Amino acid sequence: MGRIVQKFGGTSVGSVERIQNVAKRIIHEVDAGNEVVVVVSAMGKTTDELVKLATSISHNPSKREMDMLLTTGEQITIALLTMALHQEGYKAQSLTGWQAGIQTEDAFSNARILDIDSKRISDLLKDGHIVVVAGFQGLIPETKDIATLGRGGSDTTAVALAAALNADRCDIYTDVTGVYTTDPRVVNSARKLPSISYDEMLEMANLGAGVLHPRAVEFAKNYSITLEVRSSMSEERGTLVEEEVSMEQNLMVRGLAFEGNITKITVSSVPNEIHALAELFTILASNGINVDIIIQNVLNEEKTNISFSIESNSLSATQEVLAAHQAKLGFESISYEQGLAKVSIVGSGMISNPGVAAKMFKALSDQEIMIKMVSTSEIKVSTVVKQEDMIKSIETLHDVFELDARVPVQNT
Amino acid sequence: MGRIVQKFGGTSVGSVERIQNVAKRIIHEVDAGNEVVVVVSAMGKTTDELVKLATSISHNPSKREMDMLLTTGEQITIALLTMALHQEGYKAQSLTGWQAGIQTEDAFSNARILDIDSKRISDLLKDGHIVVVAGFQGLIPETKDIATLGRGGSDTTAVALAAALNADRCDIYTDVTGVYTTDPRVVNSARKLPSISYDEMLEMANLGAGVLHPRAVEFAKNYSITLEVRSSMSEERGTLVEEEVSMEQNLMVRGLAFEGNITKITVSSVPNEIHALAELFTILASNGINVDIIIQNVLNEEKTNISFSIESNSLSATQEVLAAHQAKLGFESISYEQGLAKVSIVGSGMISNPGVAAKMFKALSDQEIMIKMVSTSEIKVSTVVKQEDMIKSIETLHDVFELDARVPVQNT
Repeated sequence: MGRIVQKFGGTSVGSVERIQNVAKRIIHEVDAGNEVVVVVSAMGKTTDELVKLATSISHNPSKREMDMLLTTGEQITIALLTMALHQEGYKAQSLTGWQAGIQTEDAFSNARILDIDSKRISDLLKDGHIVVVAGFQGLIPETKDIATLGRGGSDTTAVALAAALNADRCDIYTDVTGVYTTDPRVVNSARKLPSISYDEMLEMANLGAGVLHPRAVEFAKNYSITLEVRSSMSEERGTLVEEEVSMEQNLMVRGLAFEGNITKITVSSVPNEIHALAELFTILASNGINVDIIIQNVLNEEKTNISFSIESNSLSATQEVLAAHQAKLGFESISYEQGLAKVSIVGSGMISNPGVAAKMFKALSDQEIMIKMVSTSEIKVSTVVKQEDMIKSIETLHDVFELDARVPVQNT
Repeated sequence: MGRIVQKFGGTSVGSVERIQNVAKRIIHEVDAGNEVVVVVSAMGKTTDELVKLATSISHNPSKREMDMLLTTGEQITIALLTMALHQEGYKAQSLTGWQAGIQTEDAFSNARILDIDSKRISDLLKDGHIVVVAGFQGLIPETKDIATLGRGGSDTTAVALAAALNADRCDIYTDVTGVYTTDPRVVNSARKLPSISYDEMLEMANLGAGVLHPRAVEFAKNYSITLEVRSSMSEERGTLVEEEVSMEQNLMVRGLAFEGNITKITVSSVPNEIHALAELFTILASNGINVDIIIQNVLNEEKTNISFSIESNSLSATQEVLAAHQAKLGFESISYEQGLAKVSIVGSGMISNPGVAAKMFKALSDQEIMIKMVSTSEIKVSTVVKQEDMIKSIETLHDVFELDARVPVQNT
């Protein structure tokens, strides 16, 4: 008998029929003798509808009130799913984030889980219940306010609960059958990976693969929890996310990630002082602007240009924040380029292969694709290209790195 | 500077525009220098939609899970209304039932408020906030489960908060402009009452006037809280519900209440034992069947007939419960008559006027309306008639007791 945490995303619980289907998935594990804790997201488009209501009242709604609003979505799902389990004759109880003992830092809309007091869940499991927990939410212990974990927070809830409860497995049910070499909706020959390492998954997730939230992957890595990403609509095995990737250990490039709607900002003639860079990005961070790639280009001893990429919908906020701090930061001007996209190759085999980046650049330039920015890590190379070149870039790289090959490509 | 509790029902917060309108109502009182606590219901049809979701999964959903589900409705409203107040530039914070310190008994779907720890609200008021509280819900302290207060529970929340916070006023905003002599949609000459006593309101509410929940009126009576029932759509003054009804103190009949879809059940030849009556109605109550009028008719020393009225949609449940307990209760047979309605006259002046009931019966019999059951209290006479006679009964009684008169009718 094992202890399993199962997480079902918004699409998997998007209708009454799907909730009933999810109940059967859960029961399958219970009948096999397992203790099961289930984490669910809000049904389908519920969150979007709530956001729409809020923005029709205020363009900049209070984050506390947004969290108050959005957490109702998961609360609806846990109640309905628990009713579906009762209907099948199983003992089950729903718990909101605060009831499940999920404690977060004192921050709204994007809080981190600090601790989980799992006693209530453990007691319910001991008593033979299936426990159905609202994902994406927790309680700030000091203020007794409800906080959300931000985008993809239900994944984090599931992994954190798996860690707190010493679960044997954490299954992430989603609307895709696993993690692919790249998005199969874009590249026909995209191939499902049987397994992927935490770090690779992290790079894929951060780069917009969208299957698993990066914070959840970090959590899983820290607590060595094996995740399985799989579909709630099929019986097919998914992709294991774990430390040891046995079969394709040395695969040079495991996958491609990409992300549109990128804007490149250039802040010109910043004083070339030791604190300049820190100051600039501290101000942006404290205003909630997510910066991705950063490039610094020193002009001379006194001045430097700094470029960075942001999501395009943060552009006006970024401009406002920078303008408000122009005197303090001392730069001359800001320019930006919209309509960009990021295309990245990911693979732990890259560490020992210095030629991988060069191969990528050459493949793109052979297709007359202009590279606007480059950023590299040990297991990833990201390039920023024009949005209109994004698909061609992915197809080219998928082909060049032979990601559709059934037999893993070894270091070349 | 006063302290005011305002309650807005589901229709008053039924859309974004109405929520914005409600915000203006609140601000009006704040600008006048008052501390304001607001209690809101779920938006318009939200509760019905949630109930529909639940019943599509289970015909008999767990009460705990129903409460988990339904309390999201009010949580959505408090967040949106608070955003609307922020948008107008006012400090405001939303609180769920458990955050507002509302503690209920250990019961789901129809829990009573046991206590309110109002510290959090008081602190927020002191800090200059408008406090927006989710109606209809509270926390069971022992189990940390969410419980609802049952139908009309938001009224009770408002009145209980008014008591706990020593509020100067409790304004109940609804979709009608006040309490009428009878339903103005049915009787054209129905007249709005400037005031009504708690007891009269209680009889009106119990009899289906539907404006204020009886539990809320009882609460208001116990704590001597003056309520004003008024419309959120107009500036018109409403109806005061208070102990001293100054202007129309001795009005014999203040209003008419009525309610359709009544079924009369007759349980025949029950053993005429001292515990029989208690046993029968204990069994019905413990199965959640609301019984209204009860008539016992002793046949002989050994047997008695018992008749009672229920809501027609409880008929099959009532039959099942009685059939299951036939051996225990020892009765011979059950019969029922559907398609009935209850019509009642209410007025504290009735206490000293023994002829009122007779006048009512005569007025109905003059119209050839057959009275099926009668029940009386100190300030009320209820009759059960055929559903098809309901409207004619009301019109007749409204006329006979001169309820459309502008000058209050004195004892005659």
